[in-house]
Amino acid sequence: MSTGRVYLVGAGPGDPGLLTIRALDLLRAAEVVAYDELVSSAILALASAKAEMVPVGRRHGSGRASYRLHPEVLARARSGKCVVRLKAGDPLVFGRGGEEAEELAAAGIPCEIVPGISAALGAAAYAGIPLTHREHASHVTFATGHDVDDRHGAGGSPPYGTSGTLVLFMVSRKLAANLEAVVRAGRSPTTPAAYIASATTPAQTVVVGTLADLAVRVAGVDSSAPAIVIIGDVVSVRERIRAIASSPQPVIAARDERSLA
Amino acid sequence: MSTGRVYLVGAGPGDPGLLTIRALDLLRAAEVVAYDELVSSAILALASAKAEMVPVGRRHGSGRASYRLHPEVLARARSGKCVVRLKAGDPLVFGRGGEEAEELAAAGIPCEIVPGISAALGAAAYAGIPLTHREHASHVTFATGHDVDDRHGAGGSPPYGTSGTLVLFMVSRKLAANLEAVVRAGRSPTTPAAYIASATTPAQTVVVGTLADLAVRVAGVDSSAPAIVIIGDVVSVRERIRAIASSPQPVIAARDERSLA
Repeated sequence: MSTGRVYLVGAGPGDPGLLTIRALDLLRAAEVVAYDELVSSAILALASAKAEMVPVGRRHGSGRASYRLHPEVLARARSGKCVVRLKAGDPLVFGRGGEEAEELAAAGIPCEIVPGISAALGAAAYAGIPLTHREHASHVTFATGHDVDDRHGAGGSPPYGTSGTLVLFMVSRKLAANLEAVVRAGRSPTTPAAYIASATTPAQTVVVGTLADLAVRVAGVDSSAPAIVIIGDVVSVRERIRAIASSPQPVIAARDERSLA
Repeated sequence: MSTGRVYLVGAGPGDPGLLTIRALDLLRAAEVVAYDELVSSAILALASAKAEMVPVGRRHGSGRASYRLHPEVLARARSGKCVVRLKAGDPLVFGRGGEEAEELAAAGIPCEIVPGISAALGAAAYAGIPLTHREHASHVTFATGHDVDDRHGAGGSPPYGTSGTLVLFMVSRKLAANLEAVVRAGRSPTTPAAYIASATTPAQTVVVGTLADLAVRVAGVDSSAPAIVIIGDVVSVRERIRAIASSPQPVIAARDERSLA
């Protein structure tokens, strides 16, 4: 029996139009599609009608260190199938694609990694907030909202820096604690910050504030939706380019130009 | 005369398969395609045969602060055309998309931003190097090789941090000086580092070393090709997943598993 193959594919942040051509081709050719809970039904609908659709949790098992490849993926590949392992965003940015590729290599299963639009890039574009900008940020850091509790402790020093743009992934829970940690790391409480939930989907929600008040402003937003926070002076650019953030394909309105003068 | 519209579109790192579906749709519908020198001919060939193709430099004008929108783009939009402004990588990560969107808003021209696969994500996937990893890096920072000279001076403190993954964009020139600056910022000279030129194209070249020796190892590589450097322990994962980095669609070989035991 021949060995199958696994494609670790980024599905992007939500809008099916943000799939890559390569990802779409693979979805149409797949015999098995193993997908995260975060991948939208609109994207799953693009898979071959003949494909076996296998939901796999973002984490299977009980322990938090259980980032192992789902046994269903391994079993299908071992039986000779062409498996697309579809992950929200990009497989190598908080997607554990590297860990899964290591396991596949150890198991002797060929693997290809297909990058996807990271949630940070999708949210930035659809909310109208640049991640770098000549006047505001020469660099950008992606970190997670888990860092505060998981790795550094309340008194620790998270890798949040004091300049440039900071994007926090997976912050819909414990938002206030995470923003406080960023202030403790040296950023001013008045630093602009934007909370973007369900980025690039019709349900996209953008809430703008500062490190000091964003958690209060977000209080009414459904915390079960995936969300990221963009922190830094770049957030101020949004007002100037006036993104219509509720649109999955935002038309940046161009009216009242005089206020820019 | 009606006003046109400008789409600021990420073309991704090079492989046409890494265009998004949305970008491809817009290229096929565009009346004008204004493109960077870094966008490959294979991608430009996907544009409508009727589209006017307008090359615009990554920077026009002579000064380094001349990140203004190209006048040809403004002129075409003002004459009512649908213009796709095609940028290598992602428009909002070192792409000056935010600055161009601001200018379009000030000029009263509607604009839409379409994210693209950043060179960092493309290089990571095609070279087999995760940007974050449970065991190696809880965060990743994107900066540029220009920072050393342009913003911080030789004695300054670039935003390079001492932990996590660091990706330097635009480092094919002044590589040695940039790597030295990273060491001065606090990283060990033995930190693994990978130089990836022409990422995701058939010409992709990957050179692996350390902060101390990478510049010497890269000496023979054509410095006119666009390149990024990935710095951090994540680089060590590449050996374990054995990416065949010369392939634009890398098959990660799975042989000699025993060495992983």
